[in-house]
Amino acid sequence: MAVGIGPLPRLHPVPGIRVGVACAGFKAPGRRDLVVMALDEGAHSAAVFTGNAFCAAPVTVARDHLAGGPPRFLVINSGNANAGTGTQGIETALQCCDLIAAAAGCDRTQVLPFSTGVIGEPLPLQPFRDGLPAALAALAADGWSEAAHGIMTTDTVPKGASLQTRVDGEAVTVTGIAKGSGMICPDMATMLAFIATDCAVAPDVLRRCLDRAVADSFNRITVDGDTSTNDACVAVATGRGAAAVDSVDSQAYEDLSAALTTVCRSLAQMIVRDGEGATKFIAIDVQGGASEEECRRVAYTIAHSPLVKTAFFASDPNWGRILAAIGRAGVPELDVSRVDMSLNGVCIVRRGARAGDYREEQGAAAMQAPEIDLCIQLGRGRYRDYIWTCDLSYEYVRINAAYRS
Amino acid sequence: MAVGIGPLPRLHPVPGIRVGVACAGFKAPGRRDLVVMALDEGAHSAAVFTGNAFCAAPVTVARDHLAGGPPRFLVINSGNANAGTGTQGIETALQCCDLIAAAAGCDRTQVLPFSTGVIGEPLPLQPFRDGLPAALAALAADGWSEAAHGIMTTDTVPKGASLQTRVDGEAVTVTGIAKGSGMICPDMATMLAFIATDCAVAPDVLRRCLDRAVADSFNRITVDGDTSTNDACVAVATGRGAAAVDSVDSQAYEDLSAALTTVCRSLAQMIVRDGEGATKFIAIDVQGGASEEECRRVAYTIAHSPLVKTAFFASDPNWGRILAAIGRAGVPELDVSRVDMSLNGVCIVRRGARAGDYREEQGAAAMQAPEIDLCIQLGRGRYRDYIWTCDLSYEYVRINAAYRS
Repeated sequence: MAVGIGPLPRLHPVPGIRVGVACAGFKAPGRRDLVVMALDEGAHSAAVFTGNAFCAAPVTVARDHLAGGPPRFLVINSGNANAGTGTQGIETALQCCDLIAAAAGCDRTQVLPFSTGVIGEPLPLQPFRDGLPAALAALAADGWSEAAHGIMTTDTVPKGASLQTRVDGEAVTVTGIAKGSGMICPDMATMLAFIATDCAVAPDVLRRCLDRAVADSFNRITVDGDTSTNDACVAVATGRGAAAVDSVDSQAYEDLSAALTTVCRSLAQMIVRDGEGATKFIAIDVQGGASEEECRRVAYTIAHSPLVKTAFFASDPNWGRILAAIGRAGVPELDVSRVDMSLNGVCIVRRGARAGDYREEQGAAAMQAPEIDLCIQLGRGRYRDYIWTCDLSYEYVRINAAYRS
Repeated sequence: MAVGIGPLPRLHPVPGIRVGVACAGFKAPGRRDLVVMALDEGAHSAAVFTGNAFCAAPVTVARDHLAGGPPRFLVINSGNANAGTGTQGIETALQCCDLIAAAAGCDRTQVLPFSTGVIGEPLPLQPFRDGLPAALAALAADGWSEAAHGIMTTDTVPKGASLQTRVDGEAVTVTGIAKGSGMICPDMATMLAFIATDCAVAPDVLRRCLDRAVADSFNRITVDGDTSTNDACVAVATGRGAAAVDSVDSQAYEDLSAALTTVCRSLAQMIVRDGEGATKFIAIDVQGGASEEECRRVAYTIAHSPLVKTAFFASDPNWGRILAAIGRAGVPELDVSRVDMSLNGVCIVRRGARAGDYREEQGAAAMQAPEIDLCIQLGRGRYRDYIWTCDLSYEYVRINAAYRS
């Protein structure tokens, strides 16, 4: 069902990081479900984690370990989220780190664990015991594509993006993979993203770079408004290339920031395009607000309205539902007689009512496209914000009603 | 699809108010779609209107007219919401008032117009011209049941409730009708409720009574989180009975308040039970909060989660989705290890993780019931709040994707 996602592009190796994948038995036999990333000495990492109070055990452990110093291994299992599993879940996540530490001769705190899959089932340790030797033996610079497959759950396509560019004149590679289908789908506890570059970046600078990239990518997508217990986005800078970024006040920072943002935006859009049951990719651009915040609120209110989403699914230019969503977004003293709306270039609403020259056939034709640009003009200021979302189809209900049965 | 709604009960006439219904042609020929309520001299009215900034033309006119003095007529058409129709919509709503005023010999400002139906289509005046004579000729004390049918749009059943009780020892009647299928479904711009009593009530006291009743009824329901452009709830006190309420500091006020609240709760539950595509009625009771507000926020986050709603549809005790919704509800410093959850009396989560003695079969069995009591214990205070909602089914998508085609 994925909307406009091509085959996985070539994912360039990033010097200083090796990736290994195995079929460990978390998912059905023979399915890739265990990924190990080995980071060479000198690599720095930064991460953004879910804000959900019921965060999964691996999130708690990874956050804790990352605070202690640079990790040497990331280990990801798909098929079980190790969420809602209490203290036993924490213990299992730590034991998984121990297994890698023992095999690789590092400390358990140098391993960051990640899990994605069903919530609330105890995470078994045995598949780690069974699969880790194979995953470690498979470690290779060109393992990214395998890993993109290995972290999938309800995803219908693997997601990866890779860029070779220059930072302050020096060549750098940025490669990333992600999984998620639904911005966030708590029971297949969703979004994970791993992005690496061979640029040398100080830890605090890397963190700033990642925050900025996430703000313009993963934080702009919504499928169903739910926020997962397991969300994590990790950036690794191995320092093996010629480029270096020492401070945020530099051209090098701007260059790296742009490259990281490009890769993250590409991955984020793929998550929406592969949103559960998605048949349309919708970019909502709200302009003319008195603040960015109110533009964002309008955009999210539209994107989360089940009525708007089902109208997109039906290719029905039911603009009344969109107006109603704008009207209840809580914009203070909104003057509706200044609101305009266009859809793929067709002006539907002008000054708060149906545009005089608008014909239903135009809207119906515009709605047929699998990619929709919805533009709202609030007419009350100079601010703007945008997000990406998808429609709500029968398939969404089927996937989420049938998943565990 | 309505969950547990019996046939329309006997709707007792309310002395001082007469109701007439006609087939005017807003909907398909032969369908009841025009309702007139005639209020005898001396009746007072209070109303609560939608907070949507894109409120419909009749809402603007009704609010304006009500501020000018006691209305003598309410006129309701179904099939067209007269919303998103700009200044022409206001003009049409006023012309509709003029038609009644001319026929009945009152001022246009003594008429309150209400519309429900499709958004964004111009409201034609001709059906009013055609239908009003018949509706006025049909005015009768026992017209409530006909009116309950006449205001329906996507409703699958008519909704009415009626009560004969005592206010400070004197007999009173409270009768109400409502429509809505979806808390709020902007394109069939939803929820209208009209409640009348023969009690004599001062206007400001009636307003307080209505606010209190609405807070415990219509403000506790959600089907899809959307807020309509046309929502209105009107209470009329005709003063024809022996009972009177002069001040809010009286037993009479408490008695009338209780009766009005009972009727409103009954109507509100019917709206959820007839929610679009609903197969389950779900009461969400959040206890142990540090404030009512945070309990309410948790309840609405659960009720609006498409993932939770689809799990209810599937009768899948997928409690991880509910935990995830609690976790992202924005409760400050929530200690998840104190959270308990039970479903129809089955304890599923204790101290933030699956209860030790819980078996999936118990949850699956509890989930089969068409009426679900979901109880959350936050374990951090003495406050509590509850709401009513329904599930999200294929039928919801079908109704909302197919409606206009």
